[in-house]
Amino acid sequence: MNEREIIAHIAALAAPADGRGLIRGIGDDCAVVDRDGRHVWLLTLDTLIESVHFDTAFHPPEKLGRKAVAVNVSDIGSMGGKPRFALMSVGMPRDFDPLWFRAFAQGVSAACGEYGCLLIGGDTVASPQGLNFSLTLIGEADADKVVYRQGALPGDTLWVSGHLGWAAAGLELLQRGIGGDDETFGPLRERHLDPRARVELGSLLGESGLVHAMMDVSDGLATDLAHLCTASKVGAQFFAQTLPGGDLLNRAAALIGADPLQWAIGGGEDYELLFTATPESSVDLLALGRQLGLPLTPIGTVTAGAGVDMLRSLPDGTTSKTAVAYQGFDHFRSGR
Amino acid sequence: MNEREIIAHIAALAAPADGRGLIRGIGDDCAVVDRDGRHVWLLTLDTLIESVHFDTAFHPPEKLGRKAVAVNVSDIGSMGGKPRFALMSVGMPRDFDPLWFRAFAQGVSAACGEYGCLLIGGDTVASPQGLNFSLTLIGEADADKVVYRQGALPGDTLWVSGHLGWAAAGLELLQRGIGGDDETFGPLRERHLDPRARVELGSLLGESGLVHAMMDVSDGLATDLAHLCTASKVGAQFFAQTLPGGDLLNRAAALIGADPLQWAIGGGEDYELLFTATPESSVDLLALGRQLGLPLTPIGTVTAGAGVDMLRSLPDGTTSKTAVAYQGFDHFRSGR
Repeated sequence: MNEREIIAHIAALAAPADGRGLIRGIGDDCAVVDRDGRHVWLLTLDTLIESVHFDTAFHPPEKLGRKAVAVNVSDIGSMGGKPRFALMSVGMPRDFDPLWFRAFAQGVSAACGEYGCLLIGGDTVASPQGLNFSLTLIGEADADKVVYRQGALPGDTLWVSGHLGWAAAGLELLQRGIGGDDETFGPLRERHLDPRARVELGSLLGESGLVHAMMDVSDGLATDLAHLCTASKVGAQFFAQTLPGGDLLNRAAALIGADPLQWAIGGGEDYELLFTATPESSVDLLALGRQLGLPLTPIGTVTAGAGVDMLRSLPDGTTSKTAVAYQGFDHFRSGR
Repeated sequence: MNEREIIAHIAALAAPADGRGLIRGIGDDCAVVDRDGRHVWLLTLDTLIESVHFDTAFHPPEKLGRKAVAVNVSDIGSMGGKPRFALMSVGMPRDFDPLWFRAFAQGVSAACGEYGCLLIGGDTVASPQGLNFSLTLIGEADADKVVYRQGALPGDTLWVSGHLGWAAAGLELLQRGIGGDDETFGPLRERHLDPRARVELGSLLGESGLVHAMMDVSDGLATDLAHLCTASKVGAQFFAQTLPGGDLLNRAAALIGADPLQWAIGGGEDYELLFTATPESSVDLLALGRQLGLPLTPIGTVTAGAGVDMLRSLPDGTTSKTAVAYQGFDHFRSGR
């Protein structure tokens, strides 16, 4: 079973919505539950596991605490919501370092403050084999402003915020111990160590009413775009040369002999927002990005049909087309 | 740092309630958040870690799935709420056994159905070092019917539902491979493997208006009663001979040479309810227990002051008094 098969199996066992206030269950960045008829609550739960999601050898504890909050807040923001409450489960070996833990907790607290959510509960458990942290985030939104993965329409323009591939590049630099003394690559390293959730952008996009479908890029563009297309029952094509990796990604790739395109489409953990809107909304969307000081880039088009294709202009003037759906991170890939 | 110090550290960093609808943050079985002025939501998050909370050598996966739900539902029930929604994070090694996982998921699904909650989301992650499962439960209650740990008054009678020490005894029998073919001890083993959350009792007690303070017994009577007393700013004394271990606990103790009293006060994981009420409520409470077919036992008294004392009648006719506060399970005890 791979990750999608596990989730599909759980979703099939989960009871369907039955009028008890559940608006959206398994299958989006958050579950959506009615609060009072006009507002909804968004609920998400994410776990970070030592040696899978982070390496304490180079991940400072305060930044890890910040990241544990940010990756959950990102799921709230990607549906247009605002974070309100957080619960945290802390699993640590019995001989954990109290100084490490205090710095981690400080990071959690600081990030909760910055994103405007209150830490209201949780759990502490012994975890002899390594650290693990689970956070539940509860967000709020106007019921009619929530943006789902479903809703993308053929002809829509595909957009992505910020830069793609930076977290993957930063992680590889950190793992290989390359460029650590070069401040140039700081933004790549920081994207892995201390990512920011695009909660302000998500909220503005939700309020704008311009966006048909949205999610965050946590498993890589190829996988997350395929999720969005599956949920919307559409296909998509994007243009390799328009992906916003930026010169910095190319320089890092040149330094260590990597392929910047692989980072950009398969890397994951960028926590940028991926969304679709009609081409007519483009001017407004670009203006919104300028207002936030965050680049928003059109990268392709939603198509009728299914699947995700990457188009690439070749030196001979022709265009190659490659199917790339779900070629991102899968926790259980080796189990296939 | 021990478990209480970790929680206190996190609670100190957590922002205080600021009018955004938070009624109760860290420090109770659940956090409590306003829903619509009349109803509240109860939120809890618990994690189960392989080799700490369960041993797959003798824990059937379906029962483990049921338990993962029950231990969270117990926190909802112990505040008088009804479970509504669940989120689950599943951490498994990449080479996990799909048959094991399907049985586990079946148990989660069945327990959600029995307790009346919908599984609405979650996360799946690779966890190379072993299995771990985090569940968030969201429950609902009338705002004026929620019962907190605080509220116990000097002179109150202390009550506990069902039996104490059974889960600890069952676990020890399973770990030592003793009595496995003896159906007599089945109820002890089942209490560890497949505990029931007292959600119906908790809800009835909340609605009765008779109960001043309540929590579930998850870390053992000595620890959980100390939590209740600390939250209520009172002390307590209980009578060793009145603890509802039952003859079955004594027989298991005799079989393996253990002390049944240690199981009853320090064992944990019974998920029974511990609560206080005025002595005048006793008749009504006993009737409520009979109605549910569940014994409710008065075990002691709330006192002015602080601390938890165990009283024990000695053969010479005198009574011994022993301070036992917090002598239950602490995940980080060795770190003290």
